[in-house]
Amino acid sequence: MHDEFRPLRYEPGRLILLDQRVLPQEERYLEIRSAEAAHAAIREMVVRGAPLIGVTAAYGLAAEAYWHAQDPALPQRLLWAAEHLATARPTAVNLRWAIERIRRVVQSTPRHLAEAVEAEAQRIEQEERDRCEAIARHGLPLVPSGARILTICNTGRLATPGIGTALGIIYRAHEAGRVQMVYVPETRPWLQGARLTTYELAQAGVPHRLIVDSLAPFLLSLGQVDLVIVGADRIARNGDTANKIGTLSLALAARQFGVPFYVAAPLSSFDPQLATGRQIPVEQRAGDEVRRFRDCATATPDTETLNYAFDITPGELITGFITEIGVLKPPFSLPSS
Amino acid sequence: MHDEFRPLRYEPGRLILLDQRVLPQEERYLEIRSAEAAHAAIREMVVRGAPLIGVTAAYGLAAEAYWHAQDPALPQRLLWAAEHLATARPTAVNLRWAIERIRRVVQSTPRHLAEAVEAEAQRIEQEERDRCEAIARHGLPLVPSGARILTICNTGRLATPGIGTALGIIYRAHEAGRVQMVYVPETRPWLQGARLTTYELAQAGVPHRLIVDSLAPFLLSLGQVDLVIVGADRIARNGDTANKIGTLSLALAARQFGVPFYVAAPLSSFDPQLATGRQIPVEQRAGDEVRRFRDCATATPDTETLNYAFDITPGELITGFITEIGVLKPPFSLPSS
Repeated sequence: MHDEFRPLRYEPGRLILLDQRVLPQEERYLEIRSAEAAHAAIREMVVRGAPLIGVTAAYGLAAEAYWHAQDPALPQRLLWAAEHLATARPTAVNLRWAIERIRRVVQSTPRHLAEAVEAEAQRIEQEERDRCEAIARHGLPLVPSGARILTICNTGRLATPGIGTALGIIYRAHEAGRVQMVYVPETRPWLQGARLTTYELAQAGVPHRLIVDSLAPFLLSLGQVDLVIVGADRIARNGDTANKIGTLSLALAARQFGVPFYVAAPLSSFDPQLATGRQIPVEQRAGDEVRRFRDCATATPDTETLNYAFDITPGELITGFITEIGVLKPPFSLPSS
Repeated sequence: MHDEFRPLRYEPGRLILLDQRVLPQEERYLEIRSAEAAHAAIREMVVRGAPLIGVTAAYGLAAEAYWHAQDPALPQRLLWAAEHLATARPTAVNLRWAIERIRRVVQSTPRHLAEAVEAEAQRIEQEERDRCEAIARHGLPLVPSGARILTICNTGRLATPGIGTALGIIYRAHEAGRVQMVYVPETRPWLQGARLTTYELAQAGVPHRLIVDSLAPFLLSLGQVDLVIVGADRIARNGDTANKIGTLSLALAARQFGVPFYVAAPLSSFDPQLATGRQIPVEQRAGDEVRRFRDCATATPDTETLNYAFDITPGELITGFITEIGVLKPPFSLPSS
């Protein structure tokens, strides 16, 4: 059942992506054959989720290498493409991290470069999948029996090549019989919660309720949530965390009402180069995302907007960081990638 | 210009309502000739806003009285209708308050009852309009020059018979040249911010930007907001305040980041019978409001939801209450209505 919605599949030269823009109403697939097309897919949110866009970029470069394997300028072509791909979305550090791994392969591989790039992309995918399992293993003990869990956005099978980060923990906790309810904020403007997380949870049989984003703090105030678990797009050394817009609101309410607030993320989401969250670039996206709701206009087209896709939650509001190596607390001392 | 969108107009026997469900794309009017029709209009949110639904209920009873002026059982008819109208929406206390005023007229008027009810409804309307002006007068000194103001929902000319409560202050501050920017959360699920507040502010020439609800705390964290002003649906004696879902989120962020947070409301929104907000009935509305916006589905139709229309902000998070008699702090000692 879960394989029905694998977000990404690679065959030599072809990256097949489930188009997340039209879920859950449509299951449509797109085929990517170049780094340029991978850039567009990431930019336009055919795929999203920090770990998944990293893997998509890696396979985009693998496809580029496949079709130009005989090009004597292939290394230069790949380095240019890598540089361009890194600009597709600015906030999630995983994108940069995955591209850097491919870049090293390009710079250190004298022969059979296309094969080497593909192999590295496959390693990245497999490692991210393994990391999801390890995160879930470390997160499971934090979920009490009968847990009512609040999350945000989508951090599951559609956001990673594996079972997910925050949602991966929820899946394993559900299998262990511990999940009473998952509250799913719709996650405006792009509605990853309403469209993607409810879709995943329904397929996995996990009890859940959809709420508007701004209901979450009230639920916390009513004592109806035992645990908040969210994902991350980039984490600074002091624990300041960029994640989907709305995360800060959950963290503030969790602190006020005494509920544990965890970030679940692979180490590839940590940016050891940044001392604090102030240095994290926060993407601003087009106003139509705010003025519309898919094909439905809400405000008039000339309404001005401000559309940050992420916010920064201060590290001091975060109870712990659930990673593939265990539950961490800042300040982190991580190896520079 | 402002008269273009008067939300309510009464002619003998006829209450004409601007249908707020289809704004700003359509300006459609509905004519109400009975208390039953007024009940439906309030319930289905043709009109909304705590002061406005009180006035709508009063005029609904006036229309009922007009068409049944010769009915010997008119007093009983009106008392029954009043009781039914009070159930149209549970949270805003203004509805109950306005109905109580009409009920007293019914019980104390031996002759020409229809005329007396109409006159009382007109007094309620005029008083609410005057209260808006008085609230704005008391609120204006709290708005600094160059203010960047955050509000929520719609609290203006479409929520009251006058210039509004929170938005009324913003109008007067704008006329005084003090408003640099108003940030307008879209206010899911019903999108009063995106549809109504942007519409009002555009017509009045007040600079504004539409944001998704969950962006507001991030804006506060960035130091881009000087002042938060919201309305209220019901205020308990200790200052706990029921207002549009999402208000609590703004209050928590304002406290965290040191920004003043004011509630603007007429005394008709205070409920002296309630010691704390725990006793305020919080309306739950239909799941389709969350699963859809107008004709656009977000989640699948079988997705379960939780849809509280209001939240309760603890009085301790509120800097002050801007009323027609000045800026108050809890605990309040108000005359029992």
